[in-house]
Amino acid sequence: MAVKLMETLVAFCKRRGFVFQGSDIYGGLKGTYDFGPLGVELKKNLRQAWWTTMVYERDDVEGIECTHISNKLIWKYSGHEDSFSDPLVECKDCHTRMREDKMVDKTKCDKCGSTNLTEPRPFHLMMKIDMGPVANDEDYAYLRAETAQGTYINFRNVMDSTSRKIPFGIAQHGQSFRNEITPRNFLFRTREFEQAEMQFFVEPGTDKEWFETWKNIRTDWWIKQGLSEKNLRFEPHSPDDLVFYAKPPTGDIEYKFPHGWDELEGIHNRTDYDLGTHTKNQKEFDIQATVKENTHSNTKLNYLDPQTGQNYIPFVIEVAAGLNRGIIAVLNEAYAEEDLGDGKSRIVLKLKKHLAPIKVAVVPLAKNNPELVALAKDVKNRLQKLGLGRILFENTGNVGKAYRRHDEVGTPLCLTIDFESLEEKPASLTVRDRDTMKQERIEIDQIETYVLNYFKGE
Amino acid sequence: MAVKLMETLVAFCKRRGFVFQGSDIYGGLKGTYDFGPLGVELKKNLRQAWWTTMVYERDDVEGIECTHISNKLIWKYSGHEDSFSDPLVECKDCHTRMREDKMVDKTKCDKCGSTNLTEPRPFHLMMKIDMGPVANDEDYAYLRAETAQGTYINFRNVMDSTSRKIPFGIAQHGQSFRNEITPRNFLFRTREFEQAEMQFFVEPGTDKEWFETWKNIRTDWWIKQGLSEKNLRFEPHSPDDLVFYAKPPTGDIEYKFPHGWDELEGIHNRTDYDLGTHTKNQKEFDIQATVKENTHSNTKLNYLDPQTGQNYIPFVIEVAAGLNRGIIAVLNEAYAEEDLGDGKSRIVLKLKKHLAPIKVAVVPLAKNNPELVALAKDVKNRLQKLGLGRILFENTGNVGKAYRRHDEVGTPLCLTIDFESLEEKPASLTVRDRDTMKQERIEIDQIETYVLNYFKGE
Repeated sequence: MAVKLMETLVAFCKRRGFVFQGSDIYGGLKGTYDFGPLGVELKKNLRQAWWTTMVYERDDVEGIECTHISNKLIWKYSGHEDSFSDPLVECKDCHTRMREDKMVDKTKCDKCGSTNLTEPRPFHLMMKIDMGPVANDEDYAYLRAETAQGTYINFRNVMDSTSRKIPFGIAQHGQSFRNEITPRNFLFRTREFEQAEMQFFVEPGTDKEWFETWKNIRTDWWIKQGLSEKNLRFEPHSPDDLVFYAKPPTGDIEYKFPHGWDELEGIHNRTDYDLGTHTKNQKEFDIQATVKENTHSNTKLNYLDPQTGQNYIPFVIEVAAGLNRGIIAVLNEAYAEEDLGDGKSRIVLKLKKHLAPIKVAVVPLAKNNPELVALAKDVKNRLQKLGLGRILFENTGNVGKAYRRHDEVGTPLCLTIDFESLEEKPASLTVRDRDTMKQERIEIDQIETYVLNYFKGE
Repeated sequence: MAVKLMETLVAFCKRRGFVFQGSDIYGGLKGTYDFGPLGVELKKNLRQAWWTTMVYERDDVEGIECTHISNKLIWKYSGHEDSFSDPLVECKDCHTRMREDKMVDKTKCDKCGSTNLTEPRPFHLMMKIDMGPVANDEDYAYLRAETAQGTYINFRNVMDSTSRKIPFGIAQHGQSFRNEITPRNFLFRTREFEQAEMQFFVEPGTDKEWFETWKNIRTDWWIKQGLSEKNLRFEPHSPDDLVFYAKPPTGDIEYKFPHGWDELEGIHNRTDYDLGTHTKNQKEFDIQATVKENTHSNTKLNYLDPQTGQNYIPFVIEVAAGLNRGIIAVLNEAYAEEDLGDGKSRIVLKLKKHLAPIKVAVVPLAKNNPELVALAKDVKNRLQKLGLGRILFENTGNVGKAYRRHDEVGTPLCLTIDFESLEEKPASLTVRDRDTMKQERIEIDQIETYVLNYFKGE
């Protein structure tokens, strides 16, 4: 599958209701995007595929869902408050701020060309919110910059309420927020974005092995979502990029996006930094990472092994995927313009079945014909009960057009109800397959079994 | 079902991993809560039940998912920027701010008793975020105070990409944020909360009928989630509380919460206010509501009826549920302490099956016995594939304790694998029902069919 131009994907996403610019009618808000009727289903499906693999199909991972607004102490001890910033230069004439490391020419303004610039100073990437009833500068909180911190601070809550033993993990998906100066590449770098992160807590010394295990599980998962193996690679962070507490071979699963190779999911050995930095009574433990002295935490985030009696701060292997980036990757692989011969062509979105926004479209051959419509609605309602996802009743009366539209949005099956369906005994309908474009006649009594079996396959 | 004390529910939620205080290890952040391993499943199930009813099972509603951060112009024209505030009084001595209408004694500070108070002034409920690269006071955005506005501004995007005709609706769930001065009553009034809102766009003149239709659909839905009819009522807003653009009988579905009757879901006739206020070229349309003159919108949010040629701004019937409030209501109904006779009792969470966080627990009779564990894991994996939700493999070796714990968290079925399961031909296991506490022996080959049929019923 060739790499698509980002512009093609962006235009397609808007036209077909996958993704719209955020705050669209007011000229947009840079770096924000809304998911339309098909995008929301695609995203729900990708999210649920992640949850199923990471929580349901394992016996050692719990789920959690934390708030977006959180106490500033979390971000003090996580290290974000001190260091999560970019060096910005401000033009004193036009007031544009630029990342110093991204400036075209470090001696003049990218926008107006003025040389009247400030010294570089840190611009904070966390979004701050004033809140609460007391009027002072201290009463603020942060929008979370990652979901992981909510997981760490709930380590003991989860362990106590589920009686989990090490090794075990905690999975969480949800929005995170970063004040990106230069949002770019469509859904790739935005000011709010959905993460799907799992923190796996292990005994020190077993971390390297678990790192490899999770790297492989996560790579396989992306392939199952339709990404080509040749478009995926693992890139260890270079010594310069490695966060001070991380342990090699910490790095990223990269995907070959339309704009080039870039991060899709981080696979990180975070050592005992996170639980160590947030724990009470740090001196009781032999914390290997360099952590800030914690004078605020009210809870010990340690683990007492009931068999060996060892008492330690667990290491964390983190797998941190970008769901919005996943959406671009999945669409990039699935979108195809197919030559059908004789000068004909079609656009087809070859999504994996489990990701398709609409699973089945039920189309009466003629519009508004009461008997056809009644039968089509009945078939739709029966299929909807199977719990496969969205089944669409489509009363447009133009079957050819419906096939083309559903090819384009990736609907695996179209069912057409025609006048023969009303007369035949046993009654039947036409099933049309997105990928093969083949049509076959199926008895209506068998349609649930047919559809269920179809979606059971890969 | 008697009304439970809120304290009982709060303690239960923490102990069993449903809900934890947000930012817990740092003493919390008032008005924020995290959902633990069981709470996240309950919430996912309630959310999905809403989506299924509101999108999948209808032929006239589309889904959408908008950003949390949005352009300030949205909130200017929605009216929130001007009027979404509470009158606050500040104590000049201790700097406590109080809502004037909630003060115990309007002449002195609730906290320190000082009479040195400011005049009341509006305290804004929207949360403001500074953002963007240009350094000035203009460059801010708001965290959304409701999901509805994202829906309104995407009205034309959705209509254009789906070819919808009036009447149709757009559904959306997600977090909203309000700077509540006095968060209270557990999940009831918090600073961030999940809404599940659907905006239904109708022709003026048909709005009263649609209002009644949706009021009934929504009340029935709550009953299907396990709420008693006697604990539900519809309360129209009094003329004093009615927003200026709303049309009676706008009001709320109220539930009898542990703290008393209070709003669970709003059912609102919002007239043509929303699309009218956000539309470009307002003068082209006969807008009935009083709207601010819009000099920024780049899009007309009108509807041209293809059959009658009528060109109008649609009315909106909004159904706006609080999912977190729904969680309290559902738990309040389900939580029971049952007298079993002979001085015995149990706590049981009689959740509707589709809401249960864990659908089935598979328990080997003895802990760590390789053959029992292997068979139990096999049964777990087979049941997990049915797509019913979370199936738990529980290797604790204490069946009696497992039954009690799963009663308490609402697991409908426990399956026990014992030594007979290994020897018998055909092999069988014990199924134990949460509500009846009855046990029966089922052949393992039949277990998928048994479980599927069980969950098909109400």
